[in-house]
Amino acid sequence: MKGRIKHPEWADKGRIKVEWAERHMPAIGEIVKKYLKTKPLEGIRIGACLHVTKETAVLVKALQQLGARVRLAGSNPLTTQDDVAAYLDSIGIEVFAWRGETQDEYFEMIKQVTEIKPDIVVDDGADLHVTLHEEKKEIAEKVLGGTEETTTGVIRLKALSKAGKLLYPVIAVNNAKTKTIFDNKYGTGQSTIDGIMRATSLLIAGKCVVVCGYGWVGRGIAMRAKGMGARVIVTEVDPIKAIEALFDGFEVMTIEKAAEVGDIFITATGQIDVIREEHMLKMKDGAILANSGHFNVEVSVSDLERISVSKRKVREYVEEYTLKNGKKLYLLGEGRLINLVAAEGHPPEVMMCSFSNQLLSIIYIIKNHEKLERKVYNVPEEVDTSVAQYILKAWGIKIDELTEKQKKYAESWR
Amino acid sequence: MKGRIKHPEWADKGRIKVEWAERHMPAIGEIVKKYLKTKPLEGIRIGACLHVTKETAVLVKALQQLGARVRLAGSNPLTTQDDVAAYLDSIGIEVFAWRGETQDEYFEMIKQVTEIKPDIVVDDGADLHVTLHEEKKEIAEKVLGGTEETTTGVIRLKALSKAGKLLYPVIAVNNAKTKTIFDNKYGTGQSTIDGIMRATSLLIAGKCVVVCGYGWVGRGIAMRAKGMGARVIVTEVDPIKAIEALFDGFEVMTIEKAAEVGDIFITATGQIDVIREEHMLKMKDGAILANSGHFNVEVSVSDLERISVSKRKVREYVEEYTLKNGKKLYLLGEGRLINLVAAEGHPPEVMMCSFSNQLLSIIYIIKNHEKLERKVYNVPEEVDTSVAQYILKAWGIKIDELTEKQKKYAESWR
Amino acid sequence: MKGRIKHPEWADKGRIKVEWAERHMPAIGEIVKKYLKTKPLEGIRIGACLHVTKETAVLVKALQQLGARVRLAGSNPLTTQDDVAAYLDSIGIEVFAWRGETQDEYFEMIKQVTEIKPDIVVDDGADLHVTLHEEKKEIAEKVLGGTEETTTGVIRLKALSKAGKLLYPVIAVNNAKTKTIFDNKYGTGQSTIDGIMRATSLLIAGKCVVVCGYGWVGRGIAMRAKGMGARVIVTEVDPIKAIEALFDGFEVMTIEKAAEVGDIFITATGQIDVIREEHMLKMKDGAILANSGHFNVEVSVSDLERISVSKRKVREYVEEYTLKNGKKLYLLGEGRLINLVAAEGHPPEVMMCSFSNQLLSIIYIIKNHEKLERKVYNVPEEVDTSVAQYILKAWGIKIDELTEKQKKYAESWR
Amino acid sequence: MKGRIKHPEWADKGRIKVEWAERHMPAIGEIVKKYLKTKPLEGIRIGACLHVTKETAVLVKALQQLGARVRLAGSNPLTTQDDVAAYLDSIGIEVFAWRGETQDEYFEMIKQVTEIKPDIVVDDGADLHVTLHEEKKEIAEKVLGGTEETTTGVIRLKALSKAGKLLYPVIAVNNAKTKTIFDNKYGTGQSTIDGIMRATSLLIAGKCVVVCGYGWVGRGIAMRAKGMGARVIVTEVDPIKAIEALFDGFEVMTIEKAAEVGDIFITATGQIDVIREEHMLKMKDGAILANSGHFNVEVSVSDLERISVSKRKVREYVEEYTLKNGKKLYLLGEGRLINLVAAEGHPPEVMMCSFSNQLLSIIYIIKNHEKLERKVYNVPEEVDTSVAQYILKAWGIKIDELTEKQKKYAESWR
Repeated sequence: MKGRIKHPEWADKGRIKVEWAERHMPAIGEIVKKYLKTKPLEGIRIGACLHVTKETAVLVKALQQLGARVRLAGSNPLTTQDDVAAYLDSIGIEVFAWRGETQDEYFEMIKQVTEIKPDIVVDDGADLHVTLHEEKKEIAEKVLGGTEETTTGVIRLKALSKAGKLLYPVIAVNNAKTKTIFDNKYGTGQSTIDGIMRATSLLIAGKCVVVCGYGWVGRGIAMRAKGMGARVIVTEVDPIKAIEALFDGFEVMTIEKAAEVGDIFITATGQIDVIREEHMLKMKDGAILANSGHFNVEVSVSDLERISVSKRKVREYVEEYTLKNGKKLYLLGEGRLINLVAAEGHPPEVMMCSFSNQLLSIIYIIKNHEKLERKVYNVPEEVDTSVAQYILKAWGIKIDELTEKQKKYAESWR
Repeated sequence: MKGRIKHPEWADKGRIKVEWAERHMPAIGEIVKKYLKTKPLEGIRIGACLHVTKETAVLVKALQQLGARVRLAGSNPLTTQDDVAAYLDSIGIEVFAWRGETQDEYFEMIKQVTEIKPDIVVDDGADLHVTLHEEKKEIAEKVLGGTEETTTGVIRLKALSKAGKLLYPVIAVNNAKTKTIFDNKYGTGQSTIDGIMRATSLLIAGKCVVVCGYGWVGRGIAMRAKGMGARVIVTEVDPIKAIEALFDGFEVMTIEKAAEVGDIFITATGQIDVIREEHMLKMKDGAILANSGHFNVEVSVSDLERISVSKRKVREYVEEYTLKNGKKLYLLGEGRLINLVAAEGHPPEVMMCSFSNQLLSIIYIIKNHEKLERKVYNVPEEVDTSVAQYILKAWGIKIDELTEKQKKYAESWR
Repeated sequence: MKGRIKHPEWADKGRIKVEWAERHMPAIGEIVKKYLKTKPLEGIRIGACLHVTKETAVLVKALQQLGARVRLAGSNPLTTQDDVAAYLDSIGIEVFAWRGETQDEYFEMIKQVTEIKPDIVVDDGADLHVTLHEEKKEIAEKVLGGTEETTTGVIRLKALSKAGKLLYPVIAVNNAKTKTIFDNKYGTGQSTIDGIMRATSLLIAGKCVVVCGYGWVGRGIAMRAKGMGARVIVTEVDPIKAIEALFDGFEVMTIEKAAEVGDIFITATGQIDVIREEHMLKMKDGAILANSGHFNVEVSVSDLERISVSKRKVREYVEEYTLKNGKKLYLLGEGRLINLVAAEGHPPEVMMCSFSNQLLSIIYIIKNHEKLERKVYNVPEEVDTSVAQYILKAWGIKIDELTEKQKKYAESWR
Repeated sequence: MKGRIKHPEWADKGRIKVEWAERHMPAIGEIVKKYLKTKPLEGIRIGACLHVTKETAVLVKALQQLGARVRLAGSNPLTTQDDVAAYLDSIGIEVFAWRGETQDEYFEMIKQVTEIKPDIVVDDGADLHVTLHEEKKEIAEKVLGGTEETTTGVIRLKALSKAGKLLYPVIAVNNAKTKTIFDNKYGTGQSTIDGIMRATSLLIAGKCVVVCGYGWVGRGIAMRAKGMGARVIVTEVDPIKAIEALFDGFEVMTIEKAAEVGDIFITATGQIDVIREEHMLKMKDGAILANSGHFNVEVSVSDLERISVSKRKVREYVEEYTLKNGKKLYLLGEGRLINLVAAEGHPPEVMMCSFSNQLLSIIYIIKNHEKLERKVYNVPEEVDTSVAQYILKAWGIKIDELTEKQKKYAESWR
């Protein structure tokens, strides 16, 4: 064992899992193929803090194949898949993670990652970045660059940058089009419906589904709920998005009005207290509440608790609240991201998009770190575009190219 | 304990399950409310052989509330939910069923049901009907009438009837519009997609889904796969259905051609050997095979075995076959009904339709048995229609009624 | 000139029109190709009464190519396209029709058709059939058989048959699946939306469209209105269809409720007085009323007139009614079939379906007239199916065929 | 007569047309209502060069109601609706336009507009702006500001600005979200399908429609073609858009491949020579070519001419080309914008969006001209948003507002 894991004997089970993911993330394979000869990561030490899942394994393997030495900690004490960790260990990745770490152990493992004095830092939520900046400045000073997977992490890093304290350039993988759109719209769109079906076992057709928020996530959910036969109502605070929803064929009204007619409510706003006491009190007996926003603050659980006389679990992930007014409301997954809680989160195809950006951004840093300043960068447009190109190639889909004449015509417009 | 069950201590867990189903099958409650005063089943003995699930419990409770004494066996040795059985036992239903019965035990329990000398016989697959006709003729002779839930059961009973051996009238609940259309199109449509998402964890959007058969089931699947963002190809043997598929926006081609481009194949034909060796050999590496037809004969598993050099399980319900040509194909749920194998089968709303037909057909028999002959009847049109009426009422949906003038106008056309 | 037409000099213009139709009705060409050698209509005299349009021309040409002598009258004094008539005349069809015939001229032309002593009688509305039965019995007695295109015509002929007065067998082309489904659902579905867009110039997206009736026509309209971005409400009197609408993703309510929220109302019920005074009074200022049912009785124009203080034409096919309550309602095409009034009726592809049934039914009568009785027959299932086969062939679409093993399996079920 | 028009006697007919548009552009009325008391345009001279249509009339009336003196020329010699011009004249607008102006007359009328020494200049294509800059500098110097409706016009003005020659600030109405998205996606989406149906009379269902380009316009067309039952193929040069199309359920391939299978081709790319000789030669006999891009350069008509042996008109707006290879291709509307050529262009609801931006931008200039520099501005975000708010208000649609707590939460993220 090169790192610290729980079940080295599960390596084989982990391998099969990872192979399934690998098969459905073929762009990663295409990128590896492209760079296998030149091995741009040869001799590079990569410190990573990511959810240790089958999809992450595909990324980490790719980094290793391109020459890097990788040390990996989990980015959440509860999300490590021990069989996947075992498999990675068996092929020489230094994994420091297991499911059920204590908080102390979690940060201890992150520190273990800093020990290899990484050239590149890959993070999901910025705990590793922050640890380096706060406790291991001398190591951080020598980092060539980093990447960050999440919105939250990007915000933390921008705060660091604004304060003039960021010690190396970071690419915000989160902001790539091929991450945000695919992930939010198509990934969350499907997996939210999936999560609700698993949690409730109910028929979507004929239900009135209220989607709060018509951003990327809300659009995806509304589109798929309609696709399963629901009547969909959209609520918004942005009048332009409201009209888009209307022209896309959805009804638009206030949450207050929607509260009276909805069967299933799904929040996707990025806001707090979107569904509140005053709405809950108007809901039909039996209404179902779910959230697909990042934090569990969109459905006000405290309001729900306050207006209820009792609660009980009626199915895995379904809590029944009996209100003072006698009605029952059903909260799914305690108001946490329903696609992660009750389903499997993003499909591997979606993680392929995200992790192709990771992989190419790392290679980009290696090639360009001398030109980069100590700030937070968006994924370069050429990287974003080439992610899409690798995906199309991997799926065998050919698209057109501009002719010379067309290129000139396009330029003449600028 | 009034019958024979395994875990009487699980009654409370079962009760919570049944309450969830009850809430989502409100038409049953409406029917009970309608008949609660007159109790048309007072003093009636009902022998039933059904899957002992939360939805069945709702039906059985309704029969009891309307005055009947009910004795229940499971209609499959592996499908009994022991907690539901315990709950039914706790409220006075005589249940003879547990998960994991041997074949002998299974038939022994069916015989236990005959012991109460039922006035009405409710069956799912006709094992109880056949047992009565073959081994308990003297009891069968006195039965007022029966119902049958499945296509298979109806076929067996029609054979009995044709041979002049049917001893009591049977209503083929299976053939009601409110059973067949809702169950096949909307129920199987959703649950098939659900089953495939659970089994594979993959993104449906962007996949090429090939649906074999454009009957009710195929229509439902095609509609929902499209709704989740797939490109859908339909294959058919009936030229009229083929054109309907085309006009509904789907591509239509032979399975042979579709084999070359499909990512996911779903059979829904009621036929055997729909996907065969010659098709499998043309499929893309990584293609996925699933079945939503009643029997596991639509994807030829024997062909698949024959052309493969090895197989292994890569996920729960996903078997990887490595073909002699080097490609890998993935068979879901061993070619069995994927919505039952990998998801939860029909949502309670769909079972409400089916079981409302059961309940009203039983009441119909009680009221009309003297006029009925010893043959297999379709559900009377008035029952079929009133099922829909109860459902609309339960959901609070009002529709129009013909005015007197319109009734006359309609008659003038006939 | 062989018959009586108005503008023989327009033949060339007519030819171009017919060629466009011919190109988009290729199944007719396929059928002709099949029978060109054997010429089953050689020596047969066909008397026809049909709308003289480019699509009818394609049918009539086909009859001629297969050996028939055809004499054609128009089936409505106002629908003859004089250029098409001229072209048909120029190729030897005896046409007796022009746009703007008087009522007397119209029936005189029908009588002209009877003069050739037809072996086969082809009709659209049954005026020719009835004329033969009432005024030319001696000719009717020798007719081998006839066909009828419309619901109305079939009703008239069934009345004749019931009274024991039908003098030759008639095939009700109207009742073929490949006529009814394709024509009503897909043909009327598209052309109704087309007609409303042309009449109003308005955006469908974001509108609330109320579809009254969820039969084949209503389904087609609801599907296409949704496809253009409308929110669709369905009203019904049949509870089963109401639930189908619900599960297809539409809202279902009474017309009374829908009246308050609809922007555009479309009737497709086959009933009278579907939208009445009490509904109109509740409608929003500016609501639009259209009909897609066969007769102009679905929107009660007399009610609308009664509750209005004035009316005026605001666009071609749009009449503005100012109600006593001050609101304005807009009636399209005087409540007549909006797809015919404001658009071009059925696309040629749809007429191909209908007229392939005509052509094959005529050949069927020639081959089987000795076995046929003097009654109204449905289109034989084999004809219906072969129409679909010819269409698929013409479009180059191949479908599967049952293997021998599958045929046996199918039989084993019966 | 205050200006120069052709048919003053048509004023009444024009009035009815404008009333229809007014009813369906209610946001304009809302804005007028808001500003009617303060009359912010009192004493302001507005010189406008716009297509003289019923929708433009609604804008011009609103300007007048808010106090402005308006002088209007047509922005194209062929698009003036003479009845609308007559009506505007009858209510005191100085109109200098008629259908069928010569090129000289056209520019003469534009000069007439400059004569009033406008404070505000409203233009569609920038001919008026350019005339002022080139020939009437002394007048241009005193202009407070201008607006521009089109992409082309914005490009011309930006060139002026870049050269340091722009004499007053201009707001690029074209770039507002409430203009671009609604106009391109929903307006062109619907009207393109409308135009193709009118031009061809064909059934969309079952056709293979190839949409070249998946920008806003292409998305709208693809969405609506699918909504009418077509199988839709998308071609793109941008790999990210290509994957979006794929995940939205469309097939993606090169034009070369699509050429072999498409029935109807629609270009919407903004590029030249998108469909070229090499593609045309591969197309199926009977394929139909249409364009929805701004210029008629997307389908290479010169290529089509070169590879053809003959052409003829077969329907209004349908030209049949017979190729040397014997196949026939059908070009709609000579490759010009099919929604304008064969249908009525944008519905009034869409013009309401665009013209609300015009109206509010003009008021914005009046209020802020002292702060504005001589450059091209985007529509201020607050104007864009308030357009959407006026529309929602006019349609009676209420949406949510952020609570104080939510506003703080939103700020805490920045």
